[in-house]
Amino acid sequence: MRPAQSESMPTRPDPATPSSAIQPPATDPTLIFEHFRGSYGSELLTVAVAHFNLFGLLAAGPQSLTYLCHKLGLETRPANVLLTALQAMQLVERADNDRYAVTPLAREHLVPGAPFEVCDYVGLAANAPGVLEMAERLRSNRPAESGDDEGAAFIYREGIKSAMESTALARHFTLALAGRAKNVAPVLADRLSMDNVSRVLDIGGGTGIYSIALLQKHQHLSAVVLDRAEVLKVAAEMAQQYGVADRLELVAGDMFADPLPPDCQAVLLSNILHDWDVPQCQKLVHRAAQALPPGGRLWIHDVYLNDNLDGPLPIALYSAALFTLTEGRAYSQAEYRGWMHDAGLTTSAAIPTLVHCGVLTGTKPIRSSPNEPRR
Amino acid sequence: MRPAQSESMPTRPDPATPSSAIQPPATDPTLIFEHFRGSYGSELLTVAVAHFNLFGLLAAGPQSLTYLCHKLGLETRPANVLLTALQAMQLVERADNDRYAVTPLAREHLVPGAPFEVCDYVGLAANAPGVLEMAERLRSNRPAESGDDEGAAFIYREGIKSAMESTALARHFTLALAGRAKNVAPVLADRLSMDNVSRVLDIGGGTGIYSIALLQKHQHLSAVVLDRAEVLKVAAEMAQQYGVADRLELVAGDMFADPLPPDCQAVLLSNILHDWDVPQCQKLVHRAAQALPPGGRLWIHDVYLNDNLDGPLPIALYSAALFTLTEGRAYSQAEYRGWMHDAGLTTSAAIPTLVHCGVLTGTKPIRSSPNEPRR
Repeated sequence: MRPAQSESMPTRPDPATPSSAIQPPATDPTLIFEHFRGSYGSELLTVAVAHFNLFGLLAAGPQSLTYLCHKLGLETRPANVLLTALQAMQLVERADNDRYAVTPLAREHLVPGAPFEVCDYVGLAANAPGVLEMAERLRSNRPAESGDDEGAAFIYREGIKSAMESTALARHFTLALAGRAKNVAPVLADRLSMDNVSRVLDIGGGTGIYSIALLQKHQHLSAVVLDRAEVLKVAAEMAQQYGVADRLELVAGDMFADPLPPDCQAVLLSNILHDWDVPQCQKLVHRAAQALPPGGRLWIHDVYLNDNLDGPLPIALYSAALFTLTEGRAYSQAEYRGWMHDAGLTTSAAIPTLVHCGVLTGTKPIRSSPNEPRR
Repeated sequence: MRPAQSESMPTRPDPATPSSAIQPPATDPTLIFEHFRGSYGSELLTVAVAHFNLFGLLAAGPQSLTYLCHKLGLETRPANVLLTALQAMQLVERADNDRYAVTPLAREHLVPGAPFEVCDYVGLAANAPGVLEMAERLRSNRPAESGDDEGAAFIYREGIKSAMESTALARHFTLALAGRAKNVAPVLADRLSMDNVSRVLDIGGGTGIYSIALLQKHQHLSAVVLDRAEVLKVAAEMAQQYGVADRLELVAGDMFADPLPPDCQAVLLSNILHDWDVPQCQKLVHRAAQALPPGGRLWIHDVYLNDNLDGPLPIALYSAALFTLTEGRAYSQAEYRGWMHDAGLTTSAAIPTLVHCGVLTGTKPIRSSPNEPRR
């Protein structure tokens, strides 16, 4: 499994034993992440019952997203996160395409005054710190700031304080998040075809672990990681450690504004779009599509909500985590496909990887071929 | 389903329409309680990883409960709660009867330094308020106090401030907890035989909802609820509302110290023992057994952990909730049976009711009959 080693890699600290990024874990860590995120279910349920009286609002009949947003003072993103989770919990269902209704379960147990309601039981947690924090996040539609005034931790954009601008914090968060990515990267590298790809652009690649796995798997490949300068310090260490520094270019920049590195036949957005709201996602997908040559591929590697945004529950709770920590949420394949189609790409079936993730491929048509299938 | 009504009930406010406590809910609310308690899983996992380094401690080999308690500074109750939940999450397993080991899943992903560990990812929640609170509860082995200095909410004992001594709070908590009990009581009343029982003692009966259901189901029956005076104010209202005030006696007292009301052929401990630590449970079971006539029955209606205290997960998380709010935890049928046998009772198979609950029956032998089966 280990790549052949060249003696002409002067930058590798221990050329005899580079780490492997293509050996997958023996056990699937998904369950650990699901246990870890159970708190989001508790908090969203308690907020819905004890702070928003959502089930009381729906008791008289189905209501539209617009009505609920207005009534609860919520923007679309938090309303989506909440309603997705409550649908996944079987407490809310669609009455029709745009209207939400209580399920029989919620009608009997979560509507105030119902004979078998347990609202006050759930309300015993109304003032738990995590519940109050979730209510505030939903109302403000802003990611949490770390307690020590370091700003939003996981994203960077102009005008928002980001922990990714502090060397020590960027290193800590980048490596912490890489714990999950290390498990997933070998599976992604195993499942992606590199036919006609000699250079990959890894946008927001962080530690670069996904690129590193691709490079270890495919000896002909080179890659570019585009990320913030502080984050790339970690990627540089990793490239050494994994013995691919000679084929991994690190480019500091702003993925929303700076020119994208040229000459890449594929662009990878691995667990990036879920950090951003819809307009930013559309912009990134469009920029990636623009940067690709005809026949080039965009890989969106991420978790996927059901196309009607009603589950599955583990992704709905991960979506709540993303909501509270970033400007994003989990999206559906339908949403990703829509943005890719808008950017002129054709899409194919998603391939599952690990820890709830999968990869969707968008292909830029070869305009010179009139027989190229389009959809 | 509604009991026949007598015109000689002067205390009933609306004799034409007493509420029914014996009509069960149409939908099973269990799922709601499971979603509600997901936070305990998040918190216990995060404390184990980020505050106790439990998986690091176990990496070198299995360790006894005694060793872990000593190393982590934990008493037996919190250690049990934590280890039960981690076993239910498939992260810890028994190496033998008394020694705990990491599972292959935890060894690969939760031992610091392991190639696929996600300790720092889990550690991102290390300072979440709920996690810090859980770590403190586990270390102190004391129930949480409400923020407004009202004392431990759900239990009463000498020397501990209890919300059950404040009229308003006692009413609020008693009614909140009754939300769950209202769902379960009809099922319990349906499944318990009242053969040879004309009077039931309901120890710590709160709103009295369990007794009320039994009284509505069985017209020959009378019952006594023993609880704190403030709690019984709610029970008195409920007895009126449900039209059974003429058959329900309310006795204020201390279940650990005061003489138990006599002439009851059955004693009900419904969701009471889980509020107390082992010595108090043993004392209550012993007192109940002493109060029974030969042939009398003790019903322990509660949730049950597996006999080897390794799950199931929803009960393990409920146990964590009980741990943080009371002096108790969830117990196994084996533990309850042991205490009943020690008190001279014979036991029979548990009967499931609702919302994870079931009822165990202990019978006091009729000493005059040498053929009475014992076990």
